[in-house]
Amino acid sequence: MKRDDLCVRNWSYLAAKDSYEDAELVLMGIPMDLTSSFRTGSREGPQAIRSASEGLEEYSPYLNLDLADCPFYDEGDLLLPFGNLNECFDRIEQITKQLVLDKKIPVFLGGEHLISFPVIKSIFEFYPDLAVLHFDAHADLRDEYLGEIYSHATVIRRVCELIGPDSVYQYGIRSGTKDEYAYGKSFTNFYPFQVLPGLESSLPSLKGRPLYVTVDIDVVDPSYAPGTGTPEPGGILPQELFRTFEFLQGFNVIGCDFVELAPVYDRSGITSLLAAKLVREGLLAFSQK
Amino acid sequence: MKRDDLCVRNWSYLAAKDSYEDAELVLMGIPMDLTSSFRTGSREGPQAIRSASEGLEEYSPYLNLDLADCPFYDEGDLLLPFGNLNECFDRIEQITKQLVLDKKIPVFLGGEHLISFPVIKSIFEFYPDLAVLHFDAHADLRDEYLGEIYSHATVIRRVCELIGPDSVYQYGIRSGTKDEYAYGKSFTNFYPFQVLPGLESSLPSLKGRPLYVTVDIDVVDPSYAPGTGTPEPGGILPQELFRTFEFLQGFNVIGCDFVELAPVYDRSGITSLLAAKLVREGLLAFSQK
Amino acid sequence: MKRDDLCVRNWSYLAAKDSYEDAELVLMGIPMDLTSSFRTGSREGPQAIRSASEGLEEYSPYLNLDLADCPFYDEGDLLLPFGNLNECFDRIEQITKQLVLDKKIPVFLGGEHLISFPVIKSIFEFYPDLAVLHFDAHADLRDEYLGEIYSHATVIRRVCELIGPDSVYQYGIRSGTKDEYAYGKSFTNFYPFQVLPGLESSLPSLKGRPLYVTVDIDVVDPSYAPGTGTPEPGGILPQELFRTFEFLQGFNVIGCDFVELAPVYDRSGITSLLAAKLVREGLLAFSQK
Amino acid sequence: MKRDDLCVRNWSYLAAKDSYEDAELVLMGIPMDLTSSFRTGSREGPQAIRSASEGLEEYSPYLNLDLADCPFYDEGDLLLPFGNLNECFDRIEQITKQLVLDKKIPVFLGGEHLISFPVIKSIFEFYPDLAVLHFDAHADLRDEYLGEIYSHATVIRRVCELIGPDSVYQYGIRSGTKDEYAYGKSFTNFYPFQVLPGLESSLPSLKGRPLYVTVDIDVVDPSYAPGTGTPEPGGILPQELFRTFEFLQGFNVIGCDFVELAPVYDRSGITSLLAAKLVREGLLAFSQK
Amino acid sequence: MKRDDLCVRNWSYLAAKDSYEDAELVLMGIPMDLTSSFRTGSREGPQAIRSASEGLEEYSPYLNLDLADCPFYDEGDLLLPFGNLNECFDRIEQITKQLVLDKKIPVFLGGEHLISFPVIKSIFEFYPDLAVLHFDAHADLRDEYLGEIYSHATVIRRVCELIGPDSVYQYGIRSGTKDEYAYGKSFTNFYPFQVLPGLESSLPSLKGRPLYVTVDIDVVDPSYAPGTGTPEPGGILPQELFRTFEFLQGFNVIGCDFVELAPVYDRSGITSLLAAKLVREGLLAFSQK
Amino acid sequence: MKRDDLCVRNWSYLAAKDSYEDAELVLMGIPMDLTSSFRTGSREGPQAIRSASEGLEEYSPYLNLDLADCPFYDEGDLLLPFGNLNECFDRIEQITKQLVLDKKIPVFLGGEHLISFPVIKSIFEFYPDLAVLHFDAHADLRDEYLGEIYSHATVIRRVCELIGPDSVYQYGIRSGTKDEYAYGKSFTNFYPFQVLPGLESSLPSLKGRPLYVTVDIDVVDPSYAPGTGTPEPGGILPQELFRTFEFLQGFNVIGCDFVELAPVYDRSGITSLLAAKLVREGLLAFSQK
Repeated sequence: MKRDDLCVRNWSYLAAKDSYEDAELVLMGIPMDLTSSFRTGSREGPQAIRSASEGLEEYSPYLNLDLADCPFYDEGDLLLPFGNLNECFDRIEQITKQLVLDKKIPVFLGGEHLISFPVIKSIFEFYPDLAVLHFDAHADLRDEYLGEIYSHATVIRRVCELIGPDSVYQYGIRSGTKDEYAYGKSFTNFYPFQVLPGLESSLPSLKGRPLYVTVDIDVVDPSYAPGTGTPEPGGILPQELFRTFEFLQGFNVIGCDFVELAPVYDRSGITSLLAAKLVREGLLAFSQK
Repeated sequence: MKRDDLCVRNWSYLAAKDSYEDAELVLMGIPMDLTSSFRTGSREGPQAIRSASEGLEEYSPYLNLDLADCPFYDEGDLLLPFGNLNECFDRIEQITKQLVLDKKIPVFLGGEHLISFPVIKSIFEFYPDLAVLHFDAHADLRDEYLGEIYSHATVIRRVCELIGPDSVYQYGIRSGTKDEYAYGKSFTNFYPFQVLPGLESSLPSLKGRPLYVTVDIDVVDPSYAPGTGTPEPGGILPQELFRTFEFLQGFNVIGCDFVELAPVYDRSGITSLLAAKLVREGLLAFSQK
Repeated sequence: MKRDDLCVRNWSYLAAKDSYEDAELVLMGIPMDLTSSFRTGSREGPQAIRSASEGLEEYSPYLNLDLADCPFYDEGDLLLPFGNLNECFDRIEQITKQLVLDKKIPVFLGGEHLISFPVIKSIFEFYPDLAVLHFDAHADLRDEYLGEIYSHATVIRRVCELIGPDSVYQYGIRSGTKDEYAYGKSFTNFYPFQVLPGLESSLPSLKGRPLYVTVDIDVVDPSYAPGTGTPEPGGILPQELFRTFEFLQGFNVIGCDFVELAPVYDRSGITSLLAAKLVREGLLAFSQK
Repeated sequence: MKRDDLCVRNWSYLAAKDSYEDAELVLMGIPMDLTSSFRTGSREGPQAIRSASEGLEEYSPYLNLDLADCPFYDEGDLLLPFGNLNECFDRIEQITKQLVLDKKIPVFLGGEHLISFPVIKSIFEFYPDLAVLHFDAHADLRDEYLGEIYSHATVIRRVCELIGPDSVYQYGIRSGTKDEYAYGKSFTNFYPFQVLPGLESSLPSLKGRPLYVTVDIDVVDPSYAPGTGTPEPGGILPQELFRTFEFLQGFNVIGCDFVELAPVYDRSGITSLLAAKLVREGLLAFSQK
Repeated sequence: MKRDDLCVRNWSYLAAKDSYEDAELVLMGIPMDLTSSFRTGSREGPQAIRSASEGLEEYSPYLNLDLADCPFYDEGDLLLPFGNLNECFDRIEQITKQLVLDKKIPVFLGGEHLISFPVIKSIFEFYPDLAVLHFDAHADLRDEYLGEIYSHATVIRRVCELIGPDSVYQYGIRSGTKDEYAYGKSFTNFYPFQVLPGLESSLPSLKGRPLYVTVDIDVVDPSYAPGTGTPEPGGILPQELFRTFEFLQGFNVIGCDFVELAPVYDRSGITSLLAAKLVREGLLAFSQK
Repeated sequence: MKRDDLCVRNWSYLAAKDSYEDAELVLMGIPMDLTSSFRTGSREGPQAIRSASEGLEEYSPYLNLDLADCPFYDEGDLLLPFGNLNECFDRIEQITKQLVLDKKIPVFLGGEHLISFPVIKSIFEFYPDLAVLHFDAHADLRDEYLGEIYSHATVIRRVCELIGPDSVYQYGIRSGTKDEYAYGKSFTNFYPFQVLPGLESSLPSLKGRPLYVTVDIDVVDPSYAPGTGTPEPGGILPQELFRTFEFLQGFNVIGCDFVELAPVYDRSGITSLLAAKLVREGLLAFSQK
């Protein structure tokens, strides 16, 4: 299928430009929520982010940059077959490859965290020295979950097997099984509970490498981000993530995603607003132009 | 008082008996919501029904029967692997067959409507003259949905192919594609918009046949049942369903399900209460003892 | 304009008059919710009714009467000690007697249904030929509930013992134990499921008698009144109650209450609005002037 | 300003066609909520309707018609200056005239009810024998409200002054001041409480006349439509409106609006769904092709 | 007990005194929400604050002061014409002047932020050396917004033009256009992101000057204050504001407002509670007696 | 798979063991909410905690301990008579004594805070050198409340009278009357506003003493814990409590409770999750095996 047949366009993110061709970054929603184990609804995440973006300014006082000057395009949402994981993976891989071939920086809006696996798999084919930066409350390092190897609880384990755990950097983790913690501490770059201290210490080794950034909104405390599938008390402040994007300016981020926003649990809309603001910071920070 | 008298342990459905062996009917939750297309969350249906049942009386003034006299057991929820439809079907079929072999009348609590297919498939092996009574706002007669043949939007079409559309009775339908309406009007016993007139006219032909009853909670108007995935305005009153169970007393109902309750959209809890009350009426009406 | 003309101070019920002395009817909140068994919060009922009354007009097209012409006073809420049922009863009885002695028609806003007992007990001392009209989903005829004789589930049984069950008229009942139904059918004037047919047939025998009217908001279907402690599916439409007040015009209603509104479950505010509208109709219908 | 400068486009209504030029009907949102007196938020109505439309089928079993065959275009939302009523009126009049000049049937999505006045004023210039069909819980016939002559509570009075009250038909009214009722009964075609009986009796006199239809969602009972500014208990069922559109097929409807949806009070989304379904029925019924 | 001792009438703010004449401070609600651009509903703010105040103690452990000793009066809400900005301004100016002439310290409860402009304009006539302390997430420094010069997004710009930007102190700003940030940094006393460091450095220059304090509740992070029109992630903790009031003790605060509380988005009531607590701290800190 | 392997029956707290006899700790719900003064609903706390526990891992990265290794049993909820405080106290005392006699560490799930009094009274009979650690936003030191001596606002005063105020340690208090603060500062070990500094300084004196820990969830800020009866802005972060449990490891905690969770106000479920996580940390920290 062609790109236009794979996607459906509706409400665009604040200040998106009209041209795919001229865009450096491309927003795309991936409304998949097949394997969520506790609470569902992340499929409604992409549109909630777009809708909430209207409540924001285009200018970031954190980065002193303005979306008006940022060449990004909003491709809409990927069309997905409900209930068929293999076909979902195929379509995600297909669209990711096309975006990479078109020299775009993809910015994916989840959907559940499992979408990161087919995305990273596709990107890894082009960037064998890829490093993955993982911001999350949960380690997502299970070997299997209820008998399944592909799940939002196993996604980073699968990524580790693909690109090697020493190329995986995990920040803010505060929940997992004893086995996941043992794996993380032994094999990945594992920074529990907080984000910034670990980030600062690991950034030098990431200089110049192609980086993929995956942000599970639940890394932030549930008070700031109640609208997610498995909120975990005791998380970081949003300011830690705003600062993260400041740190990442100038690094070679070649793709990113923002996942696990579940709007139905976001009764006052503050999680969608936070996700939309993170997307704004990401667009501005990762643009090289 | 002794410790055991001081405390209450839960949550089975109101007045469930302690013995599987002595039970005529068996409640079982099937918390699958893989293929929902609009809003998700039906996996939380079974527990919401059990919890809401505490707000009801055991006695039905509609049927003048009491759960205290009804031998039913609450088996809990089926364990399901997230994201793997084939494995879900396998487990649903396995448990259904065991219940039939054990001479139980299964009462399934959804979950999404697609669960009815593996259930009916298993029951049909034992009852080749099975008729299915389908109460729903939606025809669920699509041939495929977004490329998939198994979906909550195709489930009754699959049932038609399995047992023959002339053994399928559809009541209260008020939404579908033009093709679904054409199919329903041509092939099934199709009673749109309302329930009771069609039911009364079709009951004579069902006398003595083994019947499977599948109730999608959205057959009721969204004002009475907002907590569902695809609420459709213009539905029936709950009283039409209470009356339906009165009519079905004495018929040979050999299994039933109540599906598509999505508690997260049920902000005041009234849909769960309605579903719990329908389950009570079903248990009392379908018991032959 | 002067300062007083520029501002509005509240919250009395819409169009309440300033003078207790000149009032024929007196509104009073009784925010007691001690014995609710399922969901609590009816203590917030009186203020929710007052606040919602601002969304109504003063004119009733049902009765062709206007609150502007109705001499009623809003006394505010009774102060109650939390957790002490005896003291609550004492205060309710004290205020009720004072209102009767002052020749007022009291209009109580609950609070839970149990408040009707001390109210009726006090009124009965003055009106030995009192009849009670009870509109409710639940029979409230239990002899005891969890070992307690005073409960929102036993209140009408206590009233029956006080004034005799043949002076109790019950309309719209659709839930109770088998024993409650047996008691009701044997001893009270028992009209299950619906209101108007029973009301029409019983009204002639009530002509001229002093009547106390107690309306549990849950007599209305949960779709119209989700904000209550024990919503029971399958109830009447609000229009049946509007019509009831039309029927009661000209009868000798010497007091009434509206109970069991639980605003915390009333997510869209429609139950408070309905209760407020019922209070308006009651004030207009019961005024003799 | 040109049409494109006046509007903002984002998420379109289900199955809208791509071409303005070929369209017979044109959807346009007017997100104005300046004069609401009780609860606000109708500005979010248009997008909520569009978003909810995704939960519907394109086919109407009521009319046996399909949106796939209906040439309508979704123009997006009119850009409005917050807080400036005169400028809002100017823009609404400008866009309405352009739509009429372009031979389109406009279908406006409110926003508050006051938007109907500038719309009707503009249409009336082209159709001097215009009749207005008004479906509402409230008479909206006040002469002024809190000192203002333009308000959602005075809008139909202004329309009466403009086109003559004998060209105004009001259905389902169940709330108003004594003066409004007196005015309505004396001067307009006034059908209180219900819709269909009055509609059937008035339709013959409307045959062939150009008709403007204005539907305040609160004409429906609050249980079906809680998401509105001034819900009024005791309303009609949605089925009365579906039937209304059936009746209006073949009449010369030259424009319509659906107003007063306030999504923030629509906690379960059922009001938006109902509004979206009414829009579908309106599009299908008013199309002459 | 006597009747008056048995009852409580409300809703004034907790512990308000009975006499306007003896009051040093006067609470007044200004329920205007005409120009809100994103989400509306601040008109319900004043009553939500009063209602929430019942959940607080009268004693402040932060200031070691007690409302019992604080002579303040609750004047209720200003009556406002819906939709007419000029008339709203006139009434706000009229009441403000009267309060100043009566030697009261006004404490206004919004309502949207634009109310601060007519208030400050009136006060400025009496206090030409007035300084304004502005606590907010947003700079509110736009020159115009959608063509309008009076808006909740332009209010502080208008204040700057009135009293001079060097008399305006802005704390906690974390959102604005590039132009607003340029203006703020160049002309006002501009302290972005945080409150206390800037406050401490600017307080010495404010000693003895008449001060007007305007607090937009959205200066606090949305997790603490979700119930507001334009929540902006990344805000301050409430403790920063409690500390602010401690700092301001002994300063010559001659008026203040608390604006932009939108209760309909405050699903758990915590924003109203926070606003009510801030009002208590303000009353206690600004009283000179 | 066998039937029992296919199904899951619930709801005990996550990973509870099957045997009361082998258990070191015993969970028990006490769903009493008789004396709450502001908002009610804590009776639903115990089940909400159990249900939320499913969203957690069994492993605590804070304590490096796993529930799999922790011998605890979930006894269910105590049966309580609604509205009868004396009988409630009797039953709570009876069950507490039995648990102590059976050498269990009871972990009570409230319910309102008043439950701590009968519990502590019963424990104190066995442990005369008992110290009570009280984590709360409110001092709960009133001598009486609305004329009642037993109330959730007086509970710690009663405890002080029982065991001596110098054996009571209060952490995080930020609300109370002037009298309560005076009492606390004079007689108890009173650490206002924060938890950890006071805890660290008081722990040495608690070494070896039998300790009872009572945690009112409202000690945490309302942003993290909105679902409670009297949320008080300005509270601690959850991390302070996680750290508290780390500190308490190795101390002789012989019982504890977690009270005042009110799920109906917990719209996004984050308070239940936090309470469930605190229970996990408590179980792991207080186990001596």
